[in-house]
Amino acid sequence: MKIIKNTQVLIDSLPDGKLVESNYKLVESSLNEVPKDEVLVKTIAFAITAGTRAGLQGSASYAGAPQTGVVMNSTGVGEVVESRNSQISVGTKVMVPTGWQSYSIHKASSLTVIPNEIDPILYLGPLGVNGLTAYFGLLNVGQPNEGETVMVSAAAGSVGHMVGQIAKIKKCSVIGICGSDKKCTKLETELGFDFALNYKDANFRQSLKESTPNGVDIYFDNTGGMILGSALFRLNVGGRIACCGVVSQYDTNSPEPGPKGIPGLLINKRINMQGFLVFDYSDQYEKASSEIIKWIDSEELKILTDEVKGLEAAPAAFVDLLAGGNIGTRIVRLD
Amino acid sequence: MKIIKNTQVLIDSLPDGKLVESNYKLVESSLNEVPKDEVLVKTIAFAITAGTRAGLQGSASYAGAPQTGVVMNSTGVGEVVESRNSQISVGTKVMVPTGWQSYSIHKASSLTVIPNEIDPILYLGPLGVNGLTAYFGLLNVGQPNEGETVMVSAAAGSVGHMVGQIAKIKKCSVIGICGSDKKCTKLETELGFDFALNYKDANFRQSLKESTPNGVDIYFDNTGGMILGSALFRLNVGGRIACCGVVSQYDTNSPEPGPKGIPGLLINKRINMQGFLVFDYSDQYEKASSEIIKWIDSEELKILTDEVKGLEAAPAAFVDLLAGGNIGTRIVRLD
Repeated sequence: MKIIKNTQVLIDSLPDGKLVESNYKLVESSLNEVPKDEVLVKTIAFAITAGTRAGLQGSASYAGAPQTGVVMNSTGVGEVVESRNSQISVGTKVMVPTGWQSYSIHKASSLTVIPNEIDPILYLGPLGVNGLTAYFGLLNVGQPNEGETVMVSAAAGSVGHMVGQIAKIKKCSVIGICGSDKKCTKLETELGFDFALNYKDANFRQSLKESTPNGVDIYFDNTGGMILGSALFRLNVGGRIACCGVVSQYDTNSPEPGPKGIPGLLINKRINMQGFLVFDYSDQYEKASSEIIKWIDSEELKILTDEVKGLEAAPAAFVDLLAGGNIGTRIVRLD
Repeated sequence: MKIIKNTQVLIDSLPDGKLVESNYKLVESSLNEVPKDEVLVKTIAFAITAGTRAGLQGSASYAGAPQTGVVMNSTGVGEVVESRNSQISVGTKVMVPTGWQSYSIHKASSLTVIPNEIDPILYLGPLGVNGLTAYFGLLNVGQPNEGETVMVSAAAGSVGHMVGQIAKIKKCSVIGICGSDKKCTKLETELGFDFALNYKDANFRQSLKESTPNGVDIYFDNTGGMILGSALFRLNVGGRIACCGVVSQYDTNSPEPGPKGIPGLLINKRINMQGFLVFDYSDQYEKASSEIIKWIDSEELKILTDEVKGLEAAPAAFVDLLAGGNIGTRIVRLD
């Protein structure tokens, strides 16, 4: 039996309050033999996303109750280096839930094969969970019409920066909310957002009002909390909220209550709030991916990626992401 | 010019905290001459509904900012006693926003003519705003399917007691939430609810869990607050919330924040929350009314009415309603 040494980042303890690097532990282990019909994947890179913080928070997440002593979960891309499945040859590039580790073993049903002509890294961003979340959340849940105003929070994040650009492709007016002036500048000058606002500014609510003279028709919510509360006041009658994430409430033991105005303002303005998960649209991934590729090729959709190197950098990169340190999709590259 | 003395209940001051009787003032006044094309209506009865408390609370209500020195608003039914409109003859029974007063003057466009064969009082309940709210909120917003579980709050109230019965007509399992054991008994023994729970019981959440073994598919929310929070935990994946009212937060200066779990649980369970107002369905009132009449005639829909006598009784009746004192539609009868 061939033994390969695996390097893994385990969840060593659950965060008490904010997540810290010492909640993780780097370990070396031996890999088990690859079972019949399965494959061994060498990780090329994985994505760090805020949603996985919810999985460390208790049973309220779709990810289930958190566990310690297990490899931190994440979507990744890798290369098949050993195959006991006749359908999948060594050398195939795949998207798969690698977790934070250098090797992982998978059933064929867990893999998405990446075509040779496409950079695998795109499967951590626009062609992966984040890009598809932006696509289906905006188009299927939000249902934008030409000329409407779309507001998106965590707008410089992995999902948000794509939501705003897809809304522009659909000829909407777009306002992005993020946490630094640097991000605002990037959204306005490089990605074509009509306005970008820093929610930490003292006059944020006033600026939001001035930047949305026709109100807001669709709010794509990545944060919950105060920004959701502010959006409620700007939404028009018949407005839609696509509930995608609650990043403002992940990195804590004591999430805030929901915003004032729920459900009162929902009634007065006949607002629709729809929670969604991208997995519910899996039958439409193919169509969505080909449209996203077309937009990337035509340069209508620009992809922001924010890379760090090496497994050992992952915990600090996650802590920093939860504090808003990333612009675009944060990726840990192993090769 | 013929002068008729009018008796009116005015909003004398806005409530500071809970509404009290002394927020109102009974006055006598002279009626103006009826303008050309308008009619004078003598009030037969009007309804007292929790939603009008929101209109005294500030600008967050669809009713707009509150005013003092004006007649308290309400839907009513009355008889035309003087007409300067050739289309409407004296003696016609009408549904109209009478307010809390013995006479009121209206344009023809504000009137709904009540057919001779129908008891006008039905237009304050099942054929009026409350009944139509129950009908469209459950059927158009909630979209119940046979065999699903429907939960409704303020279930012994004017809207709630009809929601539960219409859900039973649609072959759903129905659980009603209300504020007294007496109401619970009435819902279970007289109106056919499968379960009714008193939210003031210490073990309410546990009872709710036990009474909804298959979870909840539709929550018809008349209350917001704690009951909405409890419903979120029982809703199934793909559940719907029809947001109708926020009675738990009307009778106060300091409404509570929204429930925990918004938007987190909406995402995890792909829940849809839809605020609605009955007025948006006005093009379908006729069809709805004829269906409701059919259900009343077949005794599938039982109507609970809770009457008090005389204008001067209205303020106390409203204060008591906000404390949960009514069972069914509270009506003030003037004749």
